[in-house]
Amino acid sequence: MLSKNQIKLINSLGQKKYRQKHRLFVAEGIKTIGELLNSEFKLHQVFTTAPFDGVATAYETRISPAELNKISFLKSPNTALALFSMPEEQELANAQEGLTVALDGIQDPGNLGTIIRLCDWFGVTQLVCSLNTVDCYNPKVIQATMGSIKRVRLCYRDLETFLGASKQPVFGAFMDGENVYGKSLPQQGILVMGNEANGISAGIKACITEKLAIPQFGVHQETESLNVATATAILLSEFKRATGR
Amino acid sequence: MLSKNQIKLINSLGQKKYRQKHRLFVAEGIKTIGELLNSEFKLHQVFTTAPFDGVATAYETRISPAELNKISFLKSPNTALALFSMPEEQELANAQEGLTVALDGIQDPGNLGTIIRLCDWFGVTQLVCSLNTVDCYNPKVIQATMGSIKRVRLCYRDLETFLGASKQPVFGAFMDGENVYGKSLPQQGILVMGNEANGISAGIKACITEKLAIPQFGVHQETESLNVATATAILLSEFKRATGR
Repeated sequence: MLSKNQIKLINSLGQKKYRQKHRLFVAEGIKTIGELLNSEFKLHQVFTTAPFDGVATAYETRISPAELNKISFLKSPNTALALFSMPEEQELANAQEGLTVALDGIQDPGNLGTIIRLCDWFGVTQLVCSLNTVDCYNPKVIQATMGSIKRVRLCYRDLETFLGASKQPVFGAFMDGENVYGKSLPQQGILVMGNEANGISAGIKACITEKLAIPQFGVHQETESLNVATATAILLSEFKRATGR
Repeated sequence: MLSKNQIKLINSLGQKKYRQKHRLFVAEGIKTIGELLNSEFKLHQVFTTAPFDGVATAYETRISPAELNKISFLKSPNTALALFSMPEEQELANAQEGLTVALDGIQDPGNLGTIIRLCDWFGVTQLVCSLNTVDCYNPKVIQATMGSIKRVRLCYRDLETFLGASKQPVFGAFMDGENVYGKSLPQQGILVMGNEANGISAGIKACITEKLAIPQFGVHQETESLNVATATAILLSEFKRATGR
């Protein structure tokens, strides 16, 4: 049984200011909740239409599918929605080893979630988001990560300051960059990916030491660009493929 | 001004059966509509809150933002929604040259839209979807293609029949396939990508002649898989990179 106040609280967690006020975020679906239960994230409460394995009774609230509909952020709700405590923000990795991904103003929650999942797959050391990048505790980001957020070191920073202080090569994805397929890429460095509509912003552009491009193969010159998450997938694959054969 | 019947008609186009009944599909946003106007798709009507460049008055219905909200399939509606006529289904390409992508039961409209955009970018000759793949005229698919659907030859077929009749090598993405980074890939062939949750189905598996895998670099063995659209991005990049240097 859900109280009106509980419904109101959970609905409010779609907004960043209420997530920060309550220090809680939403995860939905058995797979994602299961991944987060098995991590350093601390469960606050799970609301479920069926018994939930591995959760102590004190943390479990049984609800009806109609009630789940009222609190879910999904068009087709799963069988469970959980609230987890938002952890303190992570520090930057001390020694910047391996590959860092930096995001400059990514707005779409699905894109950020997909990029977090990619960083997990490709063993990216850390993910540094500009302050105007979408919040990683947005319910749609959590959904798209499929639980991989627990395995990626992620923080929000002023990107110009972060890049300016780095001694590593800073790669950026540009339409007019150098063909990535012809490059020999290092195993240490920073890869910057830009905003969906506007790409990498002027201030950040000045910090880029190497511009990369993914060549276009279609016969249609008007093809505009790749989605930022798929471009990230291809570039991370290029950075890693030489060590993965 | 919108009539109740117009609102009802447009809302019904979220469902495949009504799209097929009316032979109409929805496109939203100036960029996507502009791309489709400049293609073989035939405009039926555009509903817009501001004058729309390049559309004859007879095809334009001026509406209020409140009215747009009632017909839009987006959480944050753009300034225009257009109806286009659904064309007859495309034929298979006669000579199967170049690379064909085949989708086995892709369910998520965003994934199909992203894959259509990738096929456009990488110059894939045709995209063959299994009969249980999500409909390409779903409003969310059209949205995710960013207009590139006009440049990709796409059809729905019984995939077992299609693959069974092909004389080309049939590649499939599997967790336990051969490391794609070590393979020499041909410029002609078929790449099969499977369902989001279950991968390639048993019947289709029997048609695969070469299993491919994208190696995992993360230190966390529990990382489950890549999203199907990002995996498609990486594999298409691998097929094409040798010719793009």
